[in-house]
Amino acid sequence: MTTPLKKPEQRPASKQRLRFWLRLLKLQRHMEAVIREKLRAEFNTTLPRFDVMAALYHHERGLRMSALSSVLKVSNGNVTGIVDRLVLDGYVVRVPVKGDRRAMVVRLTNKGRDDFSHMASVHESWVDDLLGELSTDEAEAMMASMDRLNQSLGEQT
Amino acid sequence: MTTPLKKPEQRPASKQRLRFWLRLLKLQRHMEAVIREKLRAEFNTTLPRFDVMAALYHHERGLRMSALSSVLKVSNGNVTGIVDRLVLDGYVVRVPVKGDRRAMVVRLTNKGRDDFSHMASVHESWVDDLLGELSTDEAEAMMASMDRLNQSLGEQT
Repeated sequence: MTTPLKKPEQRPASKQRLRFWLRLLKLQRHMEAVIREKLRAEFNTTLPRFDVMAALYHHERGLRMSALSSVLKVSNGNVTGIVDRLVLDGYVVRVPVKGDRRAMVVRLTNKGRDDFSHMASVHESWVDDLLGELSTDEAEAMMASMDRLNQSLGEQT
Repeated sequence: MTTPLKKPEQRPASKQRLRFWLRLLKLQRHMEAVIREKLRAEFNTTLPRFDVMAALYHHERGLRMSALSSVLKVSNGNVTGIVDRLVLDGYVVRVPVKGDRRAMVVRLTNKGRDDFSHMASVHESWVDDLLGELSTDEAEAMMASMDRLNQSLGEQT
């Protein structure tokens, strides 16, 4: 019992938080790379396009471009270009806003809703497989911690 | 044998895992957006450039371009372009590999090491602040879960 155990002082909290962040990034990047590749291979689509359709799917009445960009604010990609392409492909329409002649919202078409709904359920099964190791209790505990962190980030930034 | 309780079926594990993934993405994207902005504002640099310097910092003897790309495989950006720019700025050199006339490694210069070392410590303090809500026990528990998930992903993909 001579050699002293490494105490927490030798691993200050900031080092631990950095390791935590790098671990989280590794998990996120790995999963995102797999999901991007699956979206490409199975649906010939991209993650930013999937994200735009997801946002519109959850806002049935449509969103103004500014609101759409805001919902996707921490996502990437050129939202205008993605929407233009979705319009050309028949998944999205631009419609005037009642009572505001100059305003338009973008909205999924029925074809867009059906198509996204299918992709979303397949996407859910990918995530389920990728995270198969995660127990219910672990998931709940981590989500509670992440919620607190997300809230604190929202207050800080 | 009356009506069975609708327990897990109402919140199947796949839905929970999807919620977990969306929560993790939200945290990662929010933190990454803050860090990108701070890197730009305080160091006039980008995250891919920071990531390249970090990889070289941890490989003192240098890396071949192929190894560097592999280390950064789940990161983004054009590694060659970033390295070219770091060479022009005096942070990185290309040096021949002993015993292999055609091979080169890229390595940080002393200026590059000093510069990165400073940025890394400031970066660590940002992460420390952003994750200030995270307790030591929480961090350890989540890192253990994420390690298992990362390992299982490595085996799956």
